[in-house]
Amino acid sequence: MSTTEISAAYYKGNKEFAIEKIMAAAPKADEVQIEVAYCGICGTDLHAFHGSMDARIGHHRIIGHEMSGVIAAVGEGVSNLKAGQHVVVRPLDHCGDCPACEAGHIHICHNLKFLGLDTDGAFQQLWSVPAHTVHVLPDDLSLAHAALVEPVSVACHDVRRANVQPGEDVLVIGGGPIGMLVGMVAKQAGGNVTISEVSEARLAIAEKLGFSTLNPLNDDVPACVMEMTGTKGADVVFEVSGTQAGVNVMTEAAACRGRIVMVAIHATKPEVDMFRFFWRELELLGARVYAPEDYEKAIELVSSGGIDAETMITDIGSLDTIQSSFEALENNPTAMKSLIKLQAD
Amino acid sequence: MSTTEISAAYYKGNKEFAIEKIMAAAPKADEVQIEVAYCGICGTDLHAFHGSMDARIGHHRIIGHEMSGVIAAVGEGVSNLKAGQHVVVRPLDHCGDCPACEAGHIHICHNLKFLGLDTDGAFQQLWSVPAHTVHVLPDDLSLAHAALVEPVSVACHDVRRANVQPGEDVLVIGGGPIGMLVGMVAKQAGGNVTISEVSEARLAIAEKLGFSTLNPLNDDVPACVMEMTGTKGADVVFEVSGTQAGVNVMTEAAACRGRIVMVAIHATKPEVDMFRFFWRELELLGARVYAPEDYEKAIELVSSGGIDAETMITDIGSLDTIQSSFEALENNPTAMKSLIKLQAD
Repeated sequence: MSTTEISAAYYKGNKEFAIEKIMAAAPKADEVQIEVAYCGICGTDLHAFHGSMDARIGHHRIIGHEMSGVIAAVGEGVSNLKAGQHVVVRPLDHCGDCPACEAGHIHICHNLKFLGLDTDGAFQQLWSVPAHTVHVLPDDLSLAHAALVEPVSVACHDVRRANVQPGEDVLVIGGGPIGMLVGMVAKQAGGNVTISEVSEARLAIAEKLGFSTLNPLNDDVPACVMEMTGTKGADVVFEVSGTQAGVNVMTEAAACRGRIVMVAIHATKPEVDMFRFFWRELELLGARVYAPEDYEKAIELVSSGGIDAETMITDIGSLDTIQSSFEALENNPTAMKSLIKLQAD
Repeated sequence: MSTTEISAAYYKGNKEFAIEKIMAAAPKADEVQIEVAYCGICGTDLHAFHGSMDARIGHHRIIGHEMSGVIAAVGEGVSNLKAGQHVVVRPLDHCGDCPACEAGHIHICHNLKFLGLDTDGAFQQLWSVPAHTVHVLPDDLSLAHAALVEPVSVACHDVRRANVQPGEDVLVIGGGPIGMLVGMVAKQAGGNVTISEVSEARLAIAEKLGFSTLNPLNDDVPACVMEMTGTKGADVVFEVSGTQAGVNVMTEAAACRGRIVMVAIHATKPEVDMFRFFWRELELLGARVYAPEDYEKAIELVSSGGIDAETMITDIGSLDTIQSSFEALENNPTAMKSLIKLQAD
């Protein structure tokens, strides 16, 4: 089997990366080997960097999954893909046997493996993945922009769960990268989007992107939403803040029969106003990762300019300085998406 | 205007009723006057009896709304109803102008009046109500059984919100009167229903009604549900307990994409596992009262025997002993529905 020397960034524990030279094996049967062009730094990668996922990923793991690239080689049995195609990877490997898979919900498989956490990921120059995870890109789509497809797919999944309709009033609680993308996708679906965020720097970006904004440090968000909507409330609320304050606002600001999508990861159980769920017949929808159709929608939106990629990509670094790229994201509210470029110019 | 002397039970505050003779006026325009046959005691009526709703209802209020009766007279402008018809009342009067009414959700109107709380109710011999609240019964339906139509409509609304499908695994948390009715309606929809309840007396009734049962004091309910469903979990969970323990079980026992219906009134905010909502893409649906179609479905189920009315009706008292009927329901787990008979034999 042929091998190629490549560079890879290993998470070594305790906020440390090590760049190592390794030999990349040729793709196995039903695998595709991708020359990784760009890989974005996800909030999950930051959690890993901080050591919060050590039990799951260990101290010798190549992380990274928000990637774009070009197929270098295909393994035996792969007939629908070929070298040279521009692609992204939907980094989910399901078991096919559990009740969730049997019900068709493969993205919430009971035994889901997340590529780049449970297996080595895309902060390496050549990445081999199961062929079923690959989505082909249009040739004219910038590979840097295409590195946004994975987080945009999260947003597409969230907006699809909420079934946002043209003219609906949408509140996004939390204006980080995912909140901004959820806002953009909801706007593309026809929603009137307001973003609530505590950081003035992020609010400035939200305003530049054309959203109405509220700052809960200054504004009574539910009261403002009621006023903006003629006492109706928000038809759809996305809770992307992961805070108790956000959970309070989500029920207070929602219209009768409003749909609330739980996008954030709440590590501890917040107090939730169950009376309000009863009284206004609210609906809460958990939303996790994405289905294949969300990837196709995201590729379409990034290609068409429905996502403002230039505003979202705030930094592009290289693999040998990945350590400083991660460190630069610490408490940096003006940073949206930082990409790592995997190949030399 | 003609008037008739009738008896009425007034809630006077501090767990006291007074039976008073009053003059019932003829029905006004667009009203229907009903000779009340039976009126059940709702959990809400017990709350009122305990003084928990004094601020809303005051100390001179005729409560009661789970009723059946016969039309005595119709007011001007009522052409679709006539004296002698057997009827029940859907005790909701909506404003028609608020955003919820405009969206067609009249049962969760922002300014909803609940007849028998916000206006005088059915613990009186003649009750005048807006004609639009009246549903006609089949002549051969027992009027005692028909007094169950209102609580059965609650259960029909809950089951409709959950969209229970044949063969689905259903967990009902809480085996009081509403929990039992939710179980019966879910079973009629084809669900495999398990009732979780701490009272052995109520579990014995649930078993008599043909349900699988679990007692959280003895059983690890989520583990049992996972075992009963081949690690899948419950497709639908109804939280009818109003407890923190019930809220813990609702998320732990639900399948991926499971629907949880919030039936209970949680006066304080419980802690809710939002991570589980995200991870399993759970759905939470608040459900309050009923729509007209839920009343029609309930009438059909009570008429067809799909509801075991004989097991549900555990006591029938008379208006002059309403005080003791309410007192008898205090901490009485074997009591399901107590009816008050409004007319002399």
